[in-house]
Amino acid sequence: MSRLDSFIRRLQAQRACLDRAAELIRELPGPILELGLGNGRTYDHLRERLPERDIYVCERQVAAHPDCIPPARFLIIGDVRETLPEARARLGAAVALIHADLGSGDDESNRRQAAELAPLIAGLLQPGGIVVSDQAFVTPRLRVLELPAEVKPGRYFLYRAAGS
Amino acid sequence: MSRLDSFIRRLQAQRACLDRAAELIRELPGPILELGLGNGRTYDHLRERLPERDIYVCERQVAAHPDCIPPARFLIIGDVRETLPEARARLGAAVALIHADLGSGDDESNRRQAAELAPLIAGLLQPGGIVVSDQAFVTPRLRVLELPAEVKPGRYFLYRAAGS
Repeated sequence: MSRLDSFIRRLQAQRACLDRAAELIRELPGPILELGLGNGRTYDHLRERLPERDIYVCERQVAAHPDCIPPARFLIIGDVRETLPEARARLGAAVALIHADLGSGDDESNRRQAAELAPLIAGLLQPGGIVVSDQAFVTPRLRVLELPAEVKPGRYFLYRAAGS
Repeated sequence: MSRLDSFIRRLQAQRACLDRAAELIRELPGPILELGLGNGRTYDHLRERLPERDIYVCERQVAAHPDCIPPARFLIIGDVRETLPEARARLGAAVALIHADLGSGDDESNRRQAAELAPLIAGLLQPGGIVVSDQAFVTPRLRVLELPAEVKPGRYFLYRAAGS
């Protein structure tokens, strides 16, 4: 499988998990939190699938396509290790869906970052809230959810927050 | 259709056209020329599909994944407007396949660039040589080829060089 094949499968897995998550939170009110705006493609996908939701975005430095930059009041700029506690103070534990696409090409650094962020992410979700992530999170409050059938295990991750 | 949907379709179109081109040049000897290395995904795809071919790569500045950087003797560094004439002097009109993925988000600049490059690209191909491109090329020697059924017209382009 070439890197082109593998990249297409990763994007398809990401989209399938986001679409599943959008279904899972239909009846669950509350905002969405996108961790990492990047070029804005998944932000655009989420706002298209869930047009009625507030979508907050944490990003170190905005470099997205101009059409995919959230309104300033929904942007939380800075390092997520600092902005997630800020987001917790601002939004409370009321978030319905968090999408985290923060991984780099460095597996060891990804694992360290995921370990550090997992409890911060879990603390933002309301009971039943959903996490879609490119990294595995291991923290007591997050329960692994079954992936869409077409997603190979390990390619993307889905969790649901237990009661607080 | 979200930007994520649209990006996935573009990559699927690109892959379908590269796979079609690999079939079309099975019986046609000669090297491959990749214009724009980028992250190296399509270079990786081409070398996987056509492992026996020499693949030359024109790139302004190499920034690909370390596993996807061609051996130095196949790298032609610089602006394609200068390196394509160099490539012509070095390879002759003997290239079997050119893949050009040079477009930016600026349509007007893309059209200007395509108009400038089309005759240079056509001049590198042997009779029957194939072009796969993210931009339309209009130049006497290049004949439009039918796209794979799953590719929407205008999403990617396929040409065959007429006799010299």
